[in-house]
Amino acid sequence: MSPGNFHVRHLAVVGLGLMGGSMALALRLFADTITGVDPNPETQAYALEHQIVDCATDDLQAGVNNADAVILCAPVRTVIQLVRNRIGAYLRSNTLLIDIGSTKQDICEAMGRLPIGIHAIGGHPMTGKENSGIQASDAALYKDRPFVLCVTRRTTPATRLRALGLVEALGAIPFEMEAQRHDRVVATISHLPYLLSAALVATAATEADEDEAVWQLAAGGFRDMSRLAGSDIQMMGDILSTNTQAIAVLLAQFRVQMAMLEKMLIAHDDEKLAESLKPVRQQRIDWADKYSK
Amino acid sequence: MSPGNFHVRHLAVVGLGLMGGSMALALRLFADTITGVDPNPETQAYALEHQIVDCATDDLQAGVNNADAVILCAPVRTVIQLVRNRIGAYLRSNTLLIDIGSTKQDICEAMGRLPIGIHAIGGHPMTGKENSGIQASDAALYKDRPFVLCVTRRTTPATRLRALGLVEALGAIPFEMEAQRHDRVVATISHLPYLLSAALVATAATEADEDEAVWQLAAGGFRDMSRLAGSDIQMMGDILSTNTQAIAVLLAQFRVQMAMLEKMLIAHDDEKLAESLKPVRQQRIDWADKYSK
Repeated sequence: MSPGNFHVRHLAVVGLGLMGGSMALALRLFADTITGVDPNPETQAYALEHQIVDCATDDLQAGVNNADAVILCAPVRTVIQLVRNRIGAYLRSNTLLIDIGSTKQDICEAMGRLPIGIHAIGGHPMTGKENSGIQASDAALYKDRPFVLCVTRRTTPATRLRALGLVEALGAIPFEMEAQRHDRVVATISHLPYLLSAALVATAATEADEDEAVWQLAAGGFRDMSRLAGSDIQMMGDILSTNTQAIAVLLAQFRVQMAMLEKMLIAHDDEKLAESLKPVRQQRIDWADKYSK
Repeated sequence: MSPGNFHVRHLAVVGLGLMGGSMALALRLFADTITGVDPNPETQAYALEHQIVDCATDDLQAGVNNADAVILCAPVRTVIQLVRNRIGAYLRSNTLLIDIGSTKQDICEAMGRLPIGIHAIGGHPMTGKENSGIQASDAALYKDRPFVLCVTRRTTPATRLRALGLVEALGAIPFEMEAQRHDRVVATISHLPYLLSAALVATAATEADEDEAVWQLAAGGFRDMSRLAGSDIQMMGDILSTNTQAIAVLLAQFRVQMAMLEKMLIAHDDEKLAESLKPVRQQRIDWADKYSK
């Protein structure tokens, strides 16, 4: 078996938001039938009408019990609940089960307790969009983006190859790593930045209570730095609550960096401050040149 | 005199970077002659060749001594040095002197010590671009953007009207406020965000020393949050060193906000955390709806 020829007869996508809808669209040619599972009747209707899925249901058991592959595209805590309490009993043996949740340790741990025979692996595509919901679905959402895969106790060598095939079918770039390592990395590049953005907006709002000019004069720099603070609260709440330890470590690291800058600032040690900021600037430029489009 | 009819016979723009070049381009129709003052011969040549200015020189005295209006478009500490040590002796009486530095207290204080008869006022347009240098000059850079004006001890009522006329000629939106108030506002919306961005990149770089996946997986959220860390070091150094007190106050405010979020996070007080993040999200959305394009 090679990853080059991903194909399933019956694919089930659980959760038809932006990510799930885009997943269904992107895998159209790689599955004979796609079933979408979503509690919202309007979402189901939209997905059927726009031929994003072939069948739609709010019944998880009916949606997944004939599937060869199931992709869980729900918020992290919903995925954990589904994996812990329900889905194991509904799946056939040899079904590929993968999720796309933003934190991986809790999900992969829960997947490891599924019945033997279920081929479960954790996934996290590093992609997204400003807009959410199935209306924003985009067949190219995963293309050329990193897609992390994290093995579980239910990942066989065949599971791994099928998951790599799915990533290839999406046009994404696979990164295989331990769930713990993944969670530390995303705490750094995603969850810490979210908290900084939120605390910045909270700080600005407090200032703006005294002086409306704060909002009036805020420009491009503030726009960039505040964007993440506008993220969906349920999604972020799920992420924060399932990656608390790694985030707390990163918050401590961040405080050290801030304290060093602040010390030089307050001491008016301008040269040393500039010398500290120079490599930081270069790291950002190098990263953008190498990795950011 | 009304602000509606800004016109000068001889305008001098000191410093032909992005901001100065754009200023000259934007004021083309409002001045009979524009002289650019810049130490770099290549910049001078570029400005002449592209008819951004009519004359170019590296001699400050020669450049400004026949001017009716002088706009200082150099980094903050350069502006302070020019105002403190040199330019007062070169200017004719009744010359309008304005700067566009990002911090205003030190500059306005220095302007207040200029010879009586010089009409000096502090300015700060809230605009910019990714690219710097005269090659990036853009006649529309100031259009529809806020332009802060801060009175000095050398601002007469006529000075104020002429400055308002200049802002109107640029198509910008004037905001008149005390220099101290301005500096507190920009500490909130601009200088604190820069330091957060720099400390975030420093934190990520430390993590990336252990795990290259940090750079490889960083995506859109990190891109936004790290952009300011790529700002010019001299420009930011000037800003930080001339607004230290306000920034230190904002850093303290920010720490309070972060500590509140961290406490709820570590205590796994998910509901309270979500309740705290909700208004922050709404403030960001409201700001973007009302003020950000």
